Amino acid sequence: MTELAIASQDAAALETAPTRYIEGRGIHFAYRRLGPPTGPSTGPSTGTPLVLLQHFSGNIDAWDPAVVNALAADRPVIAFDNAGVGRSTGQTPDTVEAMARDAVDFIYLLGLSEVDLLGFSLGGCVAQQIAAEHGGLVRKLILVGTAPKGGEEHLLAVLQEAFSETDAPDPRLPLFFTKSSASRSSGLAFLKRTRVRKDDRDTDNGSAVTDPQAKALITWCATPDPGHALLRAIRQPTLVVSGSDDTMLPANNAYEMFKALGNAQLVLYPDSGHGALFQHHETFVSHVRIFLGA
Amino acid sequence: MTELAIASQDAAALETAPTRYIEGRGIHFAYRRLGPPTGPSTGPSTGTPLVLLQHFSGNIDAWDPAVVNALAADRPVIAFDNAGVGRSTGQTPDTVEAMARDAVDFIYLLGLSEVDLLGFSLGGCVAQQIAAEHGGLVRKLILVGTAPKGGEEHLLAVLQEAFSETDAPDPRLPLFFTKSSASRSSGLAFLKRTRVRKDDRDTDNGSAVTDPQAKALITWCATPDPGHALLRAIRQPTLVVSGSDDTMLPANNAYEMFKALGNAQLVLYPDSGHGALFQHHETFVSHVRIFLGA
Repeated sequence: MTELAIASQDAAALETAPTRYIEGRGIHFAYRRLGPPTGPSTGPSTGTPLVLLQHFSGNIDAWDPAVVNALAADRPVIAFDNAGVGRSTGQTPDTVEAMARDAVDFIYLLGLSEVDLLGFSLGGCVAQQIAAEHGGLVRKLILVGTAPKGGEEHLLAVLQEAFSETDAPDPRLPLFFTKSSASRSSGLAFLKRTRVRKDDRDTDNGSAVTDPQAKALITWCATPDPGHALLRAIRQPTLVVSGSDDTMLPANNAYEMFKALGNAQLVLYPDSGHGALFQHHETFVSHVRIFLGA
Repeated sequence: MTELAIASQDAAALETAPTRYIEGRGIHFAYRRLGPPTGPSTGPSTGTPLVLLQHFSGNIDAWDPAVVNALAADRPVIAFDNAGVGRSTGQTPDTVEAMARDAVDFIYLLGLSEVDLLGFSLGGCVAQQIAAEHGGLVRKLILVGTAPKGGEEHLLAVLQEAFSETDAPDPRLPLFFTKSSASRSSGLAFLKRTRVRKDDRDTDNGSAVTDPQAKALITWCATPDPGHALLRAIRQPTLVVSGSDDTMLPANNAYEMFKALGNAQLVLYPDSGHGALFQHHETFVSHVRIFLGA
């Protein structure tokens, strides 16, 4: 079955779309494809599939339907589990570079020759690596709540603090949102949205995923990149997004990336943490649509 | 004649709208009012008039019609000459604080009790002062290419360099745009747009305006504001915008303001100088509309 034929069968919502599988290089990749089919009448702005690269420990169902569905209103959007994550087989590698290779394999397996990338957190590191190494594959790049190689991270400290909040309904509340009532309230709404899907939910593979992913993120930030050589190799138009009070990967990373990238737009949101894109989902989606082209 | 009655007569474009005058406190203020009339059916988002506060040396005709007209598509927009500027009478003061008092007088003379402010460069300093002192008057605040009190400015050095470019068709080309061909080309398009209006053009009053304005801007930046007390007094939602390569008031000012303000969104544009809002006018207008509420 061609990608076009598959697309026409897909549903419009992350909560209801069937999980599909595609195999290659020994890995069974789980993914969901949303939005309109790619066809000859589609222009490059809305016709280019947007591939989502997920954060540390997250699977397909960790994406916010409010973000993903709104983005899929007028463009193909693909959420997937990279090697070893959720229901994808294979082993989760412990370097960003290997994660980037797996993601590129997945994109080519889908038969796609040009994509837009939205990478969040660890996914943003993977997106940088792909954009720098595969200039022809990536049209535009969106980096959210992430860090450059050699950037600033507080992963372990923040995780430890989040898991010590035993009254939190989900570690993502303290991890992704600030302590303000507005932020916490939007955090609860986010958690609710991620739980709407009941059947065919993605799996959580525990430390088999989080151990190598933590090592990859920490190594990425611990590896100096003099002169930001990797960022300077990225030629694509890039949208860099962060929350004002991201405790895990502080907004200063975003400002540094903006300055080092040759063609970047920076957007920082108020009173928001690592999950700024979920808290300010309407504004974020509007900004992404303007950036990608409506 | 009431403000409502005046509004219904106004034209939709900066290039064609009549220049109007209103007098009070001994000053004859020149202004143009664009966009729909304010009426009982208008909501707070699009019904609140947006008052524009102009840059160093600029008058009403120095605004970019592409920005002003697009913003006026669905909200009242008011461009005016502050005291002594263009065809407004009175003396241009040499402090931001006095400019803020004059601007507030003008706003009250129009009978307005709540406005949004868009301040560009020196106008952004005036906008900060007004928002901090008149919390009830200002609904939302947009600060473009500006500096906080105690911020970083290179006004005289940049002016000197710009005026030494004897082959530039207008000092605003080197002052507002970068040296890239894309930026210079959008700079030429901007200059062309500002020259469409032929009749009833605003006047340039030379050093009677620029001397006190330069002193005001330099004093503003030379005056330390420990802990950013002025910014912390601003409670309004604020959009802070800058170009990546603003040589006069560097983007670092914008990042500092974003961090000190309690409720700010930051947007920085690529390959752009002090005139980022004119270079990226379509994106800028979209971002402003999202921020103000459509």
